[in-house]
Amino acid sequence: MSQTLFLHPDRLLPADPATRGVARRLYAEVAGLPIISPHGHTDPAWFARDEAFADPASLLIVPDHYVFRMLHSQGVPLEAMGIARRDGGAVESDPRTIWRLFARHYPLFRGTPSRMWLDWVFAELFGLDVRLSAETADLYFDRIAEALATPAFRPRALFERLNIELITTTENPLDSLSHHRAIRESGWGGRVLTAYRPDPVIDPEFEGFQANLDRLAELTGEDTRSWTGYLAAHRDRRAFFKSMGATSTDHGHPTARTADLSPADAEALFARVESGAFSAADAELFRAQMLTEMARMSLDDGLVMQLHPGSFRNHHRPTFEAFGRDKGADMPMATDYVAGLKPLLDRFGSAEGFTLILFTLDETVYSRELAPLAGFYPCLRLGPAWWFHDSPEGMMRFREQTTETAGFYNLVGFNDDTRAFLSIPARHDVARRVDCGFLARLVVEHRLEEDEAAELAHDLTYQLVKQAYRL
Amino acid sequence: MSQTLFLHPDRLLPADPATRGVARRLYAEVAGLPIISPHGHTDPAWFARDEAFADPASLLIVPDHYVFRMLHSQGVPLEAMGIARRDGGAVESDPRTIWRLFARHYPLFRGTPSRMWLDWVFAELFGLDVRLSAETADLYFDRIAEALATPAFRPRALFERLNIELITTTENPLDSLSHHRAIRESGWGGRVLTAYRPDPVIDPEFEGFQANLDRLAELTGEDTRSWTGYLAAHRDRRAFFKSMGATSTDHGHPTARTADLSPADAEALFARVESGAFSAADAELFRAQMLTEMARMSLDDGLVMQLHPGSFRNHHRPTFEAFGRDKGADMPMATDYVAGLKPLLDRFGSAEGFTLILFTLDETVYSRELAPLAGFYPCLRLGPAWWFHDSPEGMMRFREQTTETAGFYNLVGFNDDTRAFLSIPARHDVARRVDCGFLARLVVEHRLEEDEAAELAHDLTYQLVKQAYRL
Amino acid sequence: MSQTLFLHPDRLLPADPATRGVARRLYAEVAGLPIISPHGHTDPAWFARDEAFADPASLLIVPDHYVFRMLHSQGVPLEAMGIARRDGGAVESDPRTIWRLFARHYPLFRGTPSRMWLDWVFAELFGLDVRLSAETADLYFDRIAEALATPAFRPRALFERLNIELITTTENPLDSLSHHRAIRESGWGGRVLTAYRPDPVIDPEFEGFQANLDRLAELTGEDTRSWTGYLAAHRDRRAFFKSMGATSTDHGHPTARTADLSPADAEALFARVESGAFSAADAELFRAQMLTEMARMSLDDGLVMQLHPGSFRNHHRPTFEAFGRDKGADMPMATDYVAGLKPLLDRFGSAEGFTLILFTLDETVYSRELAPLAGFYPCLRLGPAWWFHDSPEGMMRFREQTTETAGFYNLVGFNDDTRAFLSIPARHDVARRVDCGFLARLVVEHRLEEDEAAELAHDLTYQLVKQAYRL
Repeated sequence: MSQTLFLHPDRLLPADPATRGVARRLYAEVAGLPIISPHGHTDPAWFARDEAFADPASLLIVPDHYVFRMLHSQGVPLEAMGIARRDGGAVESDPRTIWRLFARHYPLFRGTPSRMWLDWVFAELFGLDVRLSAETADLYFDRIAEALATPAFRPRALFERLNIELITTTENPLDSLSHHRAIRESGWGGRVLTAYRPDPVIDPEFEGFQANLDRLAELTGEDTRSWTGYLAAHRDRRAFFKSMGATSTDHGHPTARTADLSPADAEALFARVESGAFSAADAELFRAQMLTEMARMSLDDGLVMQLHPGSFRNHHRPTFEAFGRDKGADMPMATDYVAGLKPLLDRFGSAEGFTLILFTLDETVYSRELAPLAGFYPCLRLGPAWWFHDSPEGMMRFREQTTETAGFYNLVGFNDDTRAFLSIPARHDVARRVDCGFLARLVVEHRLEEDEAAELAHDLTYQLVKQAYRL
Repeated sequence: MSQTLFLHPDRLLPADPATRGVARRLYAEVAGLPIISPHGHTDPAWFARDEAFADPASLLIVPDHYVFRMLHSQGVPLEAMGIARRDGGAVESDPRTIWRLFARHYPLFRGTPSRMWLDWVFAELFGLDVRLSAETADLYFDRIAEALATPAFRPRALFERLNIELITTTENPLDSLSHHRAIRESGWGGRVLTAYRPDPVIDPEFEGFQANLDRLAELTGEDTRSWTGYLAAHRDRRAFFKSMGATSTDHGHPTARTADLSPADAEALFARVESGAFSAADAELFRAQMLTEMARMSLDDGLVMQLHPGSFRNHHRPTFEAFGRDKGADMPMATDYVAGLKPLLDRFGSAEGFTLILFTLDETVYSRELAPLAGFYPCLRLGPAWWFHDSPEGMMRFREQTTETAGFYNLVGFNDDTRAFLSIPARHDVARRVDCGFLARLVVEHRLEEDEAAELAHDLTYQLVKQAYRL
Repeated sequence: MSQTLFLHPDRLLPADPATRGVARRLYAEVAGLPIISPHGHTDPAWFARDEAFADPASLLIVPDHYVFRMLHSQGVPLEAMGIARRDGGAVESDPRTIWRLFARHYPLFRGTPSRMWLDWVFAELFGLDVRLSAETADLYFDRIAEALATPAFRPRALFERLNIELITTTENPLDSLSHHRAIRESGWGGRVLTAYRPDPVIDPEFEGFQANLDRLAELTGEDTRSWTGYLAAHRDRRAFFKSMGATSTDHGHPTARTADLSPADAEALFARVESGAFSAADAELFRAQMLTEMARMSLDDGLVMQLHPGSFRNHHRPTFEAFGRDKGADMPMATDYVAGLKPLLDRFGSAEGFTLILFTLDETVYSRELAPLAGFYPCLRLGPAWWFHDSPEGMMRFREQTTETAGFYNLVGFNDDTRAFLSIPARHDVARRVDCGFLARLVVEHRLEEDEAAELAHDLTYQLVKQAYRL
């Protein structure tokens, strides 16, 4: 006998009846607001081509590292979940087999945000009302496969149905943005922006960095083997991205270190980097200097800067060698911001019109570093709880540990940061519910009046995002 | 239409009705206890001269870095808030203009402790019953200005009205303590003590350190260019401070590092330091050694020692250069205590009659370092949640993360640590409410009986402070 | 007049009525489950000899560092509590005097887990119904002493009465396991296992390491002065421990650093270590390499590996010199896992049949490192909140900060890790109550269905422990 699947209208709201009452009223005011998604990883080709998604497994399992890492942690090989091997070796290719494997392991997700996001997708988008399990695996597979074949489940139709006002994808400087161009030229009204993510041409330790420099030269006509030409090439691509709708840049560095070298030192450092004969310390210093250079360019072109430090990428060497990047093996590291950002902040911390949005995987910095920094520097804003911490408990810790020092107005609302397109509304809904729960507690503890809480709920959901990202 | 301002009698008490009921009963027992303020930064000249405060802006905004840093974070220049420039350059000087600017930005403080403290001052001391906003700015300014001109708002009258039993200010060794002398000689009964804060003559990197050594020599007649004379000068000034009522010393170091050098090594280190030809490592080692020297002196003279490490002072160079210290740009740093304090603790950790009170800006050490240390070493006591963490959420985290390992009796109750005189009762009231809320939860979860909770509420508010600071 | 002592049936369950209702139902299902104690420090001689415990003080105070460190922190010398001095100097030897001292200081434990564990022992095992205090000290002493003299309070009778299905002790490789042998040969049915704790023959900085190497040679007939012989000796003792019931090894290192040296480098390092002419860096690297060697052996013999890093042992030198190890002066340190474990995980992270259970004293790694690691690596499981964090607040933080990323099924249930035999059921009961409270909150917030929560409560209490430890 299968268990029912039911999305309770009060889910994620605090249990105390008075608090829940306030939270319900606050939530009612923001539940229907359109989704602003200023940072994410959906594929612009979906919206450019508007083709049907292939099948349940390749849409919901294979690309979702939250999902396959959990099964992997319990001994399921990545091959069994259809993750492609670099060497072209055999992996499971039958979507239904993959789906059944996933369904059998679904209890592993109890208490995780993936469970909530997926249940939302199953119930809201596919009308399923029994819980996913080994027994219901085929029912699910068939229902989802059938729906995906219909016009209502094409990317553009979903974009509208999901109430998305705007979505931002992330591309590197070598991308032609052809999909974004195609979307623009299609006449379709959905707003799909890009963001400038230059890691592959900034990080000397990125796979293919040297070839990327050459490709950057081809695209821009600049001499990317000279420091001046290299910077000019960035300015050129930033201008191109901006012309295609970008309002932001995004930087995924190992640390938050910045530097403010003299032009001569920067030029000498770049010479070592582009020669390929550089040390790990050179690579780190170059990344540090480039954050300051990117900030300088933001002052000119107005692109909002985002910094996501602190991930130890590809932690398990054998997995990286067999399957490549982004296979669920990135691990957070302790991250320093106060010392690391000082060179950049000394230079541009109070520069007019400059915005730097900070994210972290190290929650200890919420109250110790991020909130104190954002509560002083005019350029700084805090991104939402991110990645592993984009969860009910994680979001609540973020609110509890930043609000009192940074206030609400140095925040930028929510980012879904996902490639899991269908779950975007579920993720925003979790954020809205957690925020309303937090605000409701402040109200019932008489630390905030309810009219203010209602305004804040609206600001956190909509206004602050648009302002911070200049949308 | 203006919103009402109302201080709810249940504010900050937990929402759950049973818990709130217990919390109310506990709070009722401590709400009226007199204020013991053993560590703070009020100006003793206020109580010595007993002159009226000048105007609302110079009393409530200009000196309060919690307030002006928040406006600064949203792009308001410090000049516009009347913060004096070092170069004497023009800054806003009209109190009403500053006040209106502040009022317009008051929503920035939603959810922050500043908002609660200020609302308490507005409602309780000035009888205001509408919320501060652009519309009510002038009403506020006029009401407050009018009150400040009356005898009831003179410092000594306020001291009594605010139910302050004792307040401690903080002075450096070069201070003549003339205001404290004047207070004593005035015949007024208010207890205003000083505390010995020797950073400017201990930290080789403090602005003016060399001149301070010379001034210390003049004041004491000791040869402060010799290690022996330098230590004797400290003993002399400590004795003087003690004769003027001091019961404690206070040390604001970048780290919690201590050292226990041989006399010869200490002497050689001092020689480098006083010559001016010292490295950053020398400066750090000298500060470390001086903590142990201060502990040694405390064994003799009985002054309780306080250590406040972990602040990166003057983080934004341009702000420091334009406006000087204490302009809201100090940032917390990760701080080690377990390794750092070992030399001092190996030497004096179980010395009879020695007390060392520890504070932190790095909340991660509550459960990992501070509570385990205080739960073993007889000399150690934990100061309350401090600075950025002196807030409802911050205080609650402190309780939740220290109590189980350190117990309640290795704590020292509350410090307001403020120069914002009018808000002192509001700050103590927040602490009492949060404590009662925490204790009430232990009671309703049957982890503590209510009679014990009541005794603890009293101890945390009054007894432990007096004991720890020997008041 | 003495206060009553009463163990409320709802203790530790959340106050909110709806949440408490769910928590009660969940708890009712697990309250009576037998105790599986896979990691602890009880003395196997108790069960081998089955002799009566001597007296209340030597059973409940003298061996419990949670207890005596708290009194010590308030100035009570260890001598007064009967802690033996290394130099044989005089210490208090009258159990009743020690007990009275303890009773007088019992209020120090308010809000601590020791208070809850002890009250449970007093009420449940000795039928006491007044609170411990100076007044009731003798009543307690007499009642407990009287009971200890009865057959019902012999170790084996208690083992059965306390509903212990299985208990594991911890022995080093030089132990003959004679008590375990005696238990086996006695015909008594209680399951008492051992665990292989090789720190004294792995850590070059352990007191007596060189002598331990020699003793290891004697026991195994291997040449423990050669790298090959040393490893063979470990394999030999592991096999012996396994033959005596061990299913796990346990490693208490200062850090979580691992290494994966070439055989030649490992051999050269061992040569330095066994010669005694090694640096601190050598010692650390040797411990690091040995974790990887132990993992390699676990692949062969199937013993589950446990790693407990991050304790600064014997922090107060004078206490160590006067009283020796384990006197309440061990302090937690910040601990890195992500970088430290990489060499071992690159080598064996996805090896079939390998299990490595991680513990921490640094709570900041729960969400930043441990949950992300355990949520990816098949070999990793997370041990419960440990030592200072084995408390209601500590356990709740563990749940809140690991569940969303690691899920429940990468955990191993509860460890009591104690030598305080009588309090073992109290400790397991606290864990069960806290778990049910956490799960109940997920249910009332509609993040989990109640049938799933009930299954999880059972898994956390019983199934996951047996699975993880292969019991």
